[in-house]
Amino acid sequence: MCQVTVKQIRVYAPASIANLGPGFDVFGIALDGIGDTVILDVIPERRVEITASGDGANTIPLEAESNSAGAVAFYVMESRGLDHGFRIHIKKRVPIGKGMGSSGSSAAATALGVREMLGLELSQREYVHLAAVGEGAVSGSPHADNVAASLLGGFTMVGHEYEVIRLDPPEVEIVVVLPDVYYENKTRLARSLLPEKVGLKEAVLNVGYASRMVAAVAIGDPVLFGRSINDHLIEPYRAEMIPNFWNVKQAALEAGAYGCSIAGGGPSLFAVGENSEEIGEAMAEAFGDADVDSRVILTRPSKLGARVI
Amino acid sequence: MCQVTVKQIRVYAPASIANLGPGFDVFGIALDGIGDTVILDVIPERRVEITASGDGANTIPLEAESNSAGAVAFYVMESRGLDHGFRIHIKKRVPIGKGMGSSGSSAAATALGVREMLGLELSQREYVHLAAVGEGAVSGSPHADNVAASLLGGFTMVGHEYEVIRLDPPEVEIVVVLPDVYYENKTRLARSLLPEKVGLKEAVLNVGYASRMVAAVAIGDPVLFGRSINDHLIEPYRAEMIPNFWNVKQAALEAGAYGCSIAGGGPSLFAVGENSEEIGEAMAEAFGDADVDSRVILTRPSKLGARVI
Repeated sequence: MCQVTVKQIRVYAPASIANLGPGFDVFGIALDGIGDTVILDVIPERRVEITASGDGANTIPLEAESNSAGAVAFYVMESRGLDHGFRIHIKKRVPIGKGMGSSGSSAAATALGVREMLGLELSQREYVHLAAVGEGAVSGSPHADNVAASLLGGFTMVGHEYEVIRLDPPEVEIVVVLPDVYYENKTRLARSLLPEKVGLKEAVLNVGYASRMVAAVAIGDPVLFGRSINDHLIEPYRAEMIPNFWNVKQAALEAGAYGCSIAGGGPSLFAVGENSEEIGEAMAEAFGDADVDSRVILTRPSKLGARVI
Repeated sequence: MCQVTVKQIRVYAPASIANLGPGFDVFGIALDGIGDTVILDVIPERRVEITASGDGANTIPLEAESNSAGAVAFYVMESRGLDHGFRIHIKKRVPIGKGMGSSGSSAAATALGVREMLGLELSQREYVHLAAVGEGAVSGSPHADNVAASLLGGFTMVGHEYEVIRLDPPEVEIVVVLPDVYYENKTRLARSLLPEKVGLKEAVLNVGYASRMVAAVAIGDPVLFGRSINDHLIEPYRAEMIPNFWNVKQAALEAGAYGCSIAGGGPSLFAVGENSEEIGEAMAEAFGDADVDSRVILTRPSKLGARVI
């Protein structure tokens, strides 16, 4: 049985970018300076109550089963047979539906929160799985690429059954440009665009770029990291859901980015270079050419993942 | 113009295994204790003369254009407008047509040899390209996965236009089991078995395993390295050219191997584990069940690549 050891806890987990170009469903990187805060309280009733504040908080579902934080708490309550429930307040800071791992951030924070409150002893795999349950509630599949990064920080590779390898991230600047476009069920839409079959040649290219990206992270080579942002498997299909995609990407490269691709399931683009501000401006301008407003976020990878604050 | 600075040189380059499971056309690893030696002499005539000795030497072509060492020397003679030629003697030690990078070993040794004899200043990319010319003569495409490993040693990743990233290899034992089967134009045959299209799911699995393998090499984790030997893109298709393949692989895993796959274009299998001798015996026995004789080689990765001896 689980004993409640803490009655209230306040946890933070960073935003993240999944895929990172070549590493669809494998890579994730935690971002510095942007993340969700979750405040958890134990309540005597066996239920999960959710409230939310912050940007776009009115757009997220507040039912436990379909909210990424709520689903994590609900799963623990049910699977551990708890005789109490949780009240969850989510302070949203990660933009919703933009490919920055918003639901993963709340889920990761909640996974840490309940683990600490109940003193659960979880293997890394169980811990990642718990957070991924939250993703499952939102996207329909409990994929772990965003939550692994939010939870553990750094650069993460998700493998079989929630096994994760984590490396300290490279010291690079990351620009994320968020176009002002919205989709219902964005993650499902982004997945529906993908084909079942891809070219062997393209698969080999992605294997090569993904391998180089891991090498870049391991040896700490920011230029190699940026130049490894190349995706021949997913980007060509998802490009169509992003207005003016190819020109925005081209603008990033011409402004000096080493590489640029879609952040997670989009519609944001991220780029890595040494002059983030100019790169971001050029990308926003290219969105503007298609009459799309956008917001530019300048960030860096975060070594830290979810933490009690 | 190139000045001949050395009249005779003796060079050695290790055997190698390409692909290593998940890294088709990308990964290579140099092997310890097994390699070809090439003795190069400058001759006044503008031609390339080739002789060979050693295992299977009578089976390799001795025309400059179709011999992997000869093609390298010929290419330099032609592209640099030399007014002299080369005599090449190849001491074959790497088994031919088995997936151990035999032609790549001779090509890499020759690339080093001519570079040193003529005092050529080559970038790493040009150096790898030169050796790959030798592979092109044999296989029809100048791929660089074997030659990069033979040339530079260690664990190598081949990228765009002969750009290579090299890491020191992991400290592991490698068993290679060479079945006694032969194919005409083996490399071409092995490529002809591959489909143009593959499943996106399988491509993502290979990206994951390849990424984990690079991480394993970088952080020096031999178990993770072995467990990353998983290939969902190529192995299912090439398995059919290897008698009793699935049982031989199964025997390796049951004997304790962390992973096992096809060495390069086959037909040999390689496995990584901590009890190489038993693993090799089990694999040879499984080949025996299909009435196929085989030879077992116990080796390790080589940090060193091609060198003057």
